[in-house]
Amino acid sequence: MSTVVERLAELSQIGRGENGIDRPLASRGDRLARELFAKWARSHKYALTQDRVGNVFARRSGARDDARPILVGSHLDTVPTGGAYDGAYGVVAAICALDELEANETRTEHPIEAVAWAGEEGARFPLGCLGSSVFTGACDLEKTLSLADADGTTLRDALASRETGLLDRVPIREETRLSAYLEIHIEQGPVLEREGVPLGIVTSIAGQRRYRVAVQGTSGHAGTVPMARRGDALCAASEIILDLERAAIAIGETVATVGMFVVEPNAANVIPGRARFSVDIRSPDDAKIDAVESALRESAGRANARRRVSASIERLEARAPAPMDSKLRAAIARAITAMGERAIDLPSGAGHDAMCLCRIAPTAMIFVPSIGGKSHVAEEETAPEDLERGVAALTASIVEVDKFVI
Amino acid sequence: MSTVVERLAELSQIGRGENGIDRPLASRGDRLARELFAKWARSHKYALTQDRVGNVFARRSGARDDARPILVGSHLDTVPTGGAYDGAYGVVAAICALDELEANETRTEHPIEAVAWAGEEGARFPLGCLGSSVFTGACDLEKTLSLADADGTTLRDALASRETGLLDRVPIREETRLSAYLEIHIEQGPVLEREGVPLGIVTSIAGQRRYRVAVQGTSGHAGTVPMARRGDALCAASEIILDLERAAIAIGETVATVGMFVVEPNAANVIPGRARFSVDIRSPDDAKIDAVESALRESAGRANARRRVSASIERLEARAPAPMDSKLRAAIARAITAMGERAIDLPSGAGHDAMCLCRIAPTAMIFVPSIGGKSHVAEEETAPEDLERGVAALTASIVEVDKFVI
Repeated sequence: MSTVVERLAELSQIGRGENGIDRPLASRGDRLARELFAKWARSHKYALTQDRVGNVFARRSGARDDARPILVGSHLDTVPTGGAYDGAYGVVAAICALDELEANETRTEHPIEAVAWAGEEGARFPLGCLGSSVFTGACDLEKTLSLADADGTTLRDALASRETGLLDRVPIREETRLSAYLEIHIEQGPVLEREGVPLGIVTSIAGQRRYRVAVQGTSGHAGTVPMARRGDALCAASEIILDLERAAIAIGETVATVGMFVVEPNAANVIPGRARFSVDIRSPDDAKIDAVESALRESAGRANARRRVSASIERLEARAPAPMDSKLRAAIARAITAMGERAIDLPSGAGHDAMCLCRIAPTAMIFVPSIGGKSHVAEEETAPEDLERGVAALTASIVEVDKFVI
Repeated sequence: MSTVVERLAELSQIGRGENGIDRPLASRGDRLARELFAKWARSHKYALTQDRVGNVFARRSGARDDARPILVGSHLDTVPTGGAYDGAYGVVAAICALDELEANETRTEHPIEAVAWAGEEGARFPLGCLGSSVFTGACDLEKTLSLADADGTTLRDALASRETGLLDRVPIREETRLSAYLEIHIEQGPVLEREGVPLGIVTSIAGQRRYRVAVQGTSGHAGTVPMARRGDALCAASEIILDLERAAIAIGETVATVGMFVVEPNAANVIPGRARFSVDIRSPDDAKIDAVESALRESAGRANARRRVSASIERLEARAPAPMDSKLRAAIARAITAMGERAIDLPSGAGHDAMCLCRIAPTAMIFVPSIGGKSHVAEEETAPEDLERGVAALTASIVEVDKFVI
């Protein structure tokens, strides 16, 4: 019986639409996914807790129950057209690892907690790794609860609703101390597949900065305003987007993305008066992120000087590159070798909740291969044998890590 | 007494709402506006006729009453958040010109008819210049009457209603021959104001082509797909938009606009997999539109060759430029010079009923300045002295044109 595959299939039905899975934080689907996590936890009598932003924890007791727990998890939310594995696999694998410890009657020193972090994707509210940021103290709880989505609904209101909010009859957790954090995740890139290796041990998570750019121009009649007199916000934005792309390519070891883009009034016969877009810059090297940010600011400055627009850049978020803990990495490598499996070291281009956790506790990540390197799309996939091998590696790593962490 | 200003003020009360004037074809407001036109006509005993799509004509007899009439007019309908001048001014000015001829006991050879064209804006039924298209035979009467609005109401039904339909006790006109057509309109652009000239003589109404462009790329994770392996639909679209802008500037006497722009999936951490946008190209010179269209197609071809995307262009509409009649333009210039006023030649970037009329008769247009170049908004405005000067220029032009047209 392949529990991890079955559980992922069950979870993937929640929020599924025509173009993939859409399960943003504090949506109906997100709430149902948390309920499913709670159902799995209750079936083995793991003690459930949740915190005020919707992070949910399922605890299997350890020999020393006063010891700080080892947390193992990932997130349940998705991008608007997401797949069945990103985040979800790490949560399901964590629960499956607890079950494997239970089935083998493996006694750990530390309590082990499977955790489902809230709102990692930042798809609805303007903050990525929302749940783990609040848990680790990187973001203030009240400020985070006051964040509003595109419709003006605050996270506070969404989490207060019965339909989309916190779970019923699950106690609120205040405790945030832990001894270590482990996360297993799909690679979301092409490296493991290309190298023909089934497991990866993450060396470091790329640093990431996110920005909101607004270009204010002047809307006008598409037929009557001469080109030379236009303040076309879309043309100015296009120039900034291409400058950003050129800079990321020239600087290297860096990616820069404009993923969200909106023009106003968005009518065929009206010159766009306003454009707003997101910018996301990532690199394992903070100096390279600095260089791309400078290029972005210079480009906006050129637009302001040469076009009849006013472009402004607001930095929403800056996360430094996050190196993974070397002792935990070595423990994972030992566990995988003892299984008779192979793993390679590789960096993570994507951000993960582990990025936040590594600021407060020893943290490490395991990757499993992504078919075709695809993720954040409906076709994102990992082979069933890789999913199962990942759970085994995660379980063995928990046992190995449990031996030495404080 | 400033009749034109007073009449415009009276007319502007009809259909006025919070966000401007909303007076679509065959609405209650449109019917009331036609009734007001009829009242003005009757007060001077001009002979009223109407045709089956709601075009209304007020005829002042000429010396040769068997001669084809000179038609002078514009339209009474507005866009949903329109102003008091677009179209309305041309209709009111035409009635005021007839009154001025009457007041001065000016005898013309030809009958002069003020005309209020139906449904120029295409705001309710999916056809712009609806009334003048049917009058000039460009569109079939029965097909046009069968057009339905967004609620499914046909123009036939709307015009059959007492509330919104054809006028009572006004005979139906079958005759469509004419000797010339004159239209006075607000500029809707910034040229006259910038040049400090109170009158413009339109050289040509720009041709217009509209396209739908779709760029299909590959969405992917903003952190894990290296720049060199991306098929970013937004970057490709940005390049096409800037190529289009550059082409329109380089080719000159042309405007190109991308007014509507949408990316998918439109999430900050997902590389855009698809971009869709509108393109609107206008020029008084069809060869220049051809050249801009070629640049657009070449740019899309380059994107397809150099980027991992597939860009496709669909042409939705192509309207040839409408050159104004050179003899009529010269006659207007003579009339304005004789008044001791100044005028400049300029093209019209916006479409007008004159576009249709020029296919069947010598046609010319006069522009008055738009404050701030604004139009299709509640704040659209023209100074009272410019409105009055326009009526005087139109009246003098009618007299001049009457001397030589057949």
